[in-house]
Amino acid sequence: MSKVKVACFSISLDGFGAGIRQNLTEPLGVRGEELHEWIFPTKMFREIGRKDGGNEGVDNEFVEKSFENMGAWILGRNMFGPVRGPWPDDEWKGWWGEEPPYHVPVFVLTNHERKSVTMKGGTTFHFITGGIESAMEEARKAANGKDIRIGGGVSTIRQYLQAGYIDELHIAISPIFLGSGEHLFSGMNMTALGYNQIQIVAGENATHMIIKKG
Amino acid sequence: MSKVKVACFSISLDGFGAGIRQNLTEPLGVRGEELHEWIFPTKMFREIGRKDGGNEGVDNEFVEKSFENMGAWILGRNMFGPVRGPWPDDEWKGWWGEEPPYHVPVFVLTNHERKSVTMKGGTTFHFITGGIESAMEEARKAANGKDIRIGGGVSTIRQYLQAGYIDELHIAISPIFLGSGEHLFSGMNMTALGYNQIQIVAGENATHMIIKKG
Repeated sequence: MSKVKVACFSISLDGFGAGIRQNLTEPLGVRGEELHEWIFPTKMFREIGRKDGGNEGVDNEFVEKSFENMGAWILGRNMFGPVRGPWPDDEWKGWWGEEPPYHVPVFVLTNHERKSVTMKGGTTFHFITGGIESAMEEARKAANGKDIRIGGGVSTIRQYLQAGYIDELHIAISPIFLGSGEHLFSGMNMTALGYNQIQIVAGENATHMIIKKG
Repeated sequence: MSKVKVACFSISLDGFGAGIRQNLTEPLGVRGEELHEWIFPTKMFREIGRKDGGNEGVDNEFVEKSFENMGAWILGRNMFGPVRGPWPDDEWKGWWGEEPPYHVPVFVLTNHERKSVTMKGGTTFHFITGGIESAMEEARKAANGKDIRIGGGVSTIRQYLQAGYIDELHIAISPIFLGSGEHLFSGMNMTALGYNQIQIVAGENATHMIIKKG
């Protein structure tokens, strides 16, 4: 049965999933990149960037697992890029270069129509203007029985949590304080939403929290 | 050199250090007691309650360490008890029975004067109406070179953090979501306050976070 998952989503010790003021040079907002420092030395991350070496410990296992059995992704527009308002042209194709690491259909939530963009290696970006339900419907069709991953950002995950779609979350807690930014759990009642099975695993550079309905 | 410490202070995955609606039967607020479940099976906690047995792992080490070299404690009034407003009489003597686990002077922050209360085993409760600086001054004198522990609750810890008094925090993250209550770090900028040395250790039933200025 196809599952809807969040995986390798990083937050700070004080619960922020992104810093403030996202822009072209700081795609994750001020200091947001520090949230992800645990991921850079992993073998899997280096492989994606076509580099040798990297660590093979607990952190790496979580990165590897996060790509298993994925049939489709859903991204918020701000995770796809810094462009706001109507798309001025087709130039912006995501942060990830010519061959993004998805290799499956990716559905981008936006209020502004745009034609699909096919990238190298099997990634196609589809732009969905009908809201989160409509994106989920399209993703289910595209995933064809495989899992669907909600890539982020914070606001997209919160919307899907509140709408009851997400089966499982893997959140990586990075050992930094951000002090401000977008908070993942603030004002959410995870228990009332049915999330009760919780497991915590210490990695080399982050602490991993697995949260399931149950 | 005497240090000011927070230790074994439990928060939920979503960052709450106490539940809502504290009262006589739920001293830690609704579901607040679940925050502390990691502590009950430890050897040290059982020893305090004069019981045999208990676990001797990582969680227990943190509990043991939290009592080492303590010369004085500071507690917020709500941690001392559920009584609000002026003290009606001298009947309320804390949650901890005739022989509280402190065994040193304990300074309770309150707006209402009350005479000191001496308990069995070396604990004396002093009631401080002059604010957090005044309590710290008294605690320093009483500690006589040993450490001072800020016991809690959330609001007391936040006040001492913001005033720059706390050298070191050990926070235990319990694997539960509370969804509401008193948030420990919300709106605090821990980095700006100088907390940069962070260590995370997985225990048997909680995840331990050590935070120091550095």
